Amino acid sequence: MASTSLTFSSRDAHRAWLASQAALPAGFKTGTTRFDFVPREAPKPAKMTLTLITLDAPTADFAAVFTRNALPGAPVLVGRQRLAEPRLGAIIINNKISNVCAPGGVADAEKICTATASLLGLPASTVLPSSTGVIGGGLPVDNMLEALPTLPPALQADSILPAAEGIVTTDLDPKIRRADVGGGSIVGIAKGAGMIEPNLATMLVYILTDLAVPRAELRAMLQRVVGPSFNSISVDSDTSTSDTVALISSGRVPCANPTAFEAALAIVCHDLAEDVVRNGEGVRHVLRVTVSHAPDETTARQLGKAVVNAPLFKCAVAGNDPNVGRLVQAIGKVAGGLNGGGLDLGRLRLHLGGIEIFAHGVFQLNPDKEQALVKFLKSAELYASVIPPDGIYTAAVDYPRHERCVDIAIDLGTGTGTATVLGGDLTHEYVSENADYRS
Amino acid sequence: MASTSLTFSSRDAHRAWLASQAALPAGFKTGTTRFDFVPREAPKPAKMTLTLITLDAPTADFAAVFTRNALPGAPVLVGRQRLAEPRLGAIIINNKISNVCAPGGVADAEKICTATASLLGLPASTVLPSSTGVIGGGLPVDNMLEALPTLPPALQADSILPAAEGIVTTDLDPKIRRADVGGGSIVGIAKGAGMIEPNLATMLVYILTDLAVPRAELRAMLQRVVGPSFNSISVDSDTSTSDTVALISSGRVPCANPTAFEAALAIVCHDLAEDVVRNGEGVRHVLRVTVSHAPDETTARQLGKAVVNAPLFKCAVAGNDPNVGRLVQAIGKVAGGLNGGGLDLGRLRLHLGGIEIFAHGVFQLNPDKEQALVKFLKSAELYASVIPPDGIYTAAVDYPRHERCVDIAIDLGTGTGTATVLGGDLTHEYVSENADYRS
Repeated sequence: MASTSLTFSSRDAHRAWLASQAALPAGFKTGTTRFDFVPREAPKPAKMTLTLITLDAPTADFAAVFTRNALPGAPVLVGRQRLAEPRLGAIIINNKISNVCAPGGVADAEKICTATASLLGLPASTVLPSSTGVIGGGLPVDNMLEALPTLPPALQADSILPAAEGIVTTDLDPKIRRADVGGGSIVGIAKGAGMIEPNLATMLVYILTDLAVPRAELRAMLQRVVGPSFNSISVDSDTSTSDTVALISSGRVPCANPTAFEAALAIVCHDLAEDVVRNGEGVRHVLRVTVSHAPDETTARQLGKAVVNAPLFKCAVAGNDPNVGRLVQAIGKVAGGLNGGGLDLGRLRLHLGGIEIFAHGVFQLNPDKEQALVKFLKSAELYASVIPPDGIYTAAVDYPRHERCVDIAIDLGTGTGTATVLGGDLTHEYVSENADYRS
Repeated sequence: MASTSLTFSSRDAHRAWLASQAALPAGFKTGTTRFDFVPREAPKPAKMTLTLITLDAPTADFAAVFTRNALPGAPVLVGRQRLAEPRLGAIIINNKISNVCAPGGVADAEKICTATASLLGLPASTVLPSSTGVIGGGLPVDNMLEALPTLPPALQADSILPAAEGIVTTDLDPKIRRADVGGGSIVGIAKGAGMIEPNLATMLVYILTDLAVPRAELRAMLQRVVGPSFNSISVDSDTSTSDTVALISSGRVPCANPTAFEAALAIVCHDLAEDVVRNGEGVRHVLRVTVSHAPDETTARQLGKAVVNAPLFKCAVAGNDPNVGRLVQAIGKVAGGLNGGGLDLGRLRLHLGGIEIFAHGVFQLNPDKEQALVKFLKSAELYASVIPPDGIYTAAVDYPRHERCVDIAIDLGTGTGTATVLGGDLTHEYVSENADYRS
């Protein structure tokens, strides 16, 4: 469960909570605009939202990590260069088209930055571009250039909620997490629903803070906190070409306690990462795999990932079917090749929902446990799957809404490495979302 | 396409073709029996089929390869020991329960072997056990011991078809492939539909031949042919705990040309492997990824596997959606970490259905190509997905039936390594099969 363990009695209560978290840190403004366009490669009318985040004054204190996909999007290529620049003044984000390997993609991204910068009276090199959406198409640059001038007048310093809403694609909800610490605040928003695996997910994450943390320290902190948060989740094992996590400080509030800042940052990242999974395309159960007593942390995380990425186990969970054989299969699939050697079967212990299912080298099952496991899986469902007359399944999270997970504990009994990995089940809603997404 | 490129006008024509391939090589008999039982762990009545394959005289010339899953089933543990035995006389196979990590599982497997051997007048050590089905339960040994004596009277030397039917679980069809070579024959049957990935699939494969190939040579040949066949397929990236490929020679026909024998064996294995994919749970499109000019064969195979295992691309294919961005994402996901270094983006060329979609570092797309790609994907569909009133999708292959694939060509332009990998799309039929399989 997220550190705050939220429940929402209704959609309105959920939205009210998001609004309550949305106050922008000092020194930032955001604005959005929405317009129609026709994609070049597949001429069907579509809508794009542009989201602008600005600093009242450009800052030297910014950090970012990007996808490790070998075919990154143009904004990621540009973004990596921006890390070397002395200052960052704004972020311009579009959804709908991800600008990956499109002819002239980098030039297009730079054009958008230049136009944005010019409207703000900044050099183009201070603008970080981000794009998310379908891979393969080019940006509708003309439409975007036309829409951009409406953004500066739309800027406001009150709430990050419009930006959180502006960056999403197939997400269930906007995602905002905040921490108030040392007289300032850390506020993060995230986009991400599919193509979510490691090494960052199909994710755009922007974390804003008014606490003054110098660039080098900020970058080191971000590297440390992404491991157990954004790099410990997987919705579908796919790795987006656009993943970006940016952390920007306006420096308005002195940071007396960097340790407290990093701890708060870690919680914001952990909770946003969990929000991304809970918003995962079609996810009906959130899987939380805790691997303990592994040879090392890397092994533990690798094993956790293997479980949350095993399609047959994910399907079983979707069906509230405690098919623990598929869980064991997923462990065995990678355990032979794990860092630090194989598996000591006699020491392996598995629990599902707190119920022991494997110990002493064999399954520990009986009909009573089977029934208890079914009950547990049902209790962790986020929504009831409804059979649609047209065959297109839609995930509709039920209210009251909970943050319960399907807890899986894997104790290898051999070392001191521990990791927790989050993922989702594999549902008809995921297939509907992804087999019919574009057409 | 399989080497024989089959089309069947009707289900009857398909079955007639299977029967025409089914003549047993000299020196073998098979028999099956079916009975009711109640599983211990989940007490609901079920049916099990026992399949017996016997040799007229035990043979020294047998080979087998098994799963690399670190938690193998008891029959795999026993089977590995059997490889050291001087002779093999029979194989006893059950479906429905896979006997993996069940308390007393190895002892149960040995009990079945002992009883089978005793009925055949053989030592227990000459009997190879195999089990497939749900993981987690124990074998219904008493029911099996009761049913076993009905098997020897059922043995016949004419057709392998009843055995091909006896070993299946969720398979669409029985699978038989044969080669007539050098005055003898090689006849193989396969079971496998889900939990299919590398290092063998959820697969039981039995290949019988009357051609006399000595044990050592037979084992070396099997090792060589499984790489480009059974180790080059993946339905869902999951690796079964029970995978077994056994190759047995009755030695009745002198083998004058071992090279021709191995070539024929390679074709039988390739075609059976393709049959397994084409029978994959819910598979509506067979994906065939050919990777060329890779640094080496291992890299090529690894990249092909990444593509056929990428959930988002698999969903797009299911929806006849040429979402080539998801294909590029899948390549980029692994390309950074590939053996032999990264990717030279400028040299990468991609074709889908013979249509160029990527070259010179960028996508090569336009609305005409988009339409041609949709048409191509539709032409490769094995069946039309029908929206079921109860929400439980069932794969029902249409007749006339074809063996067309979704051909994906990835040319890395850097080396001489080549590999072809087969997989399937990700459909509602897969989710229905696996979310509702047991319950």
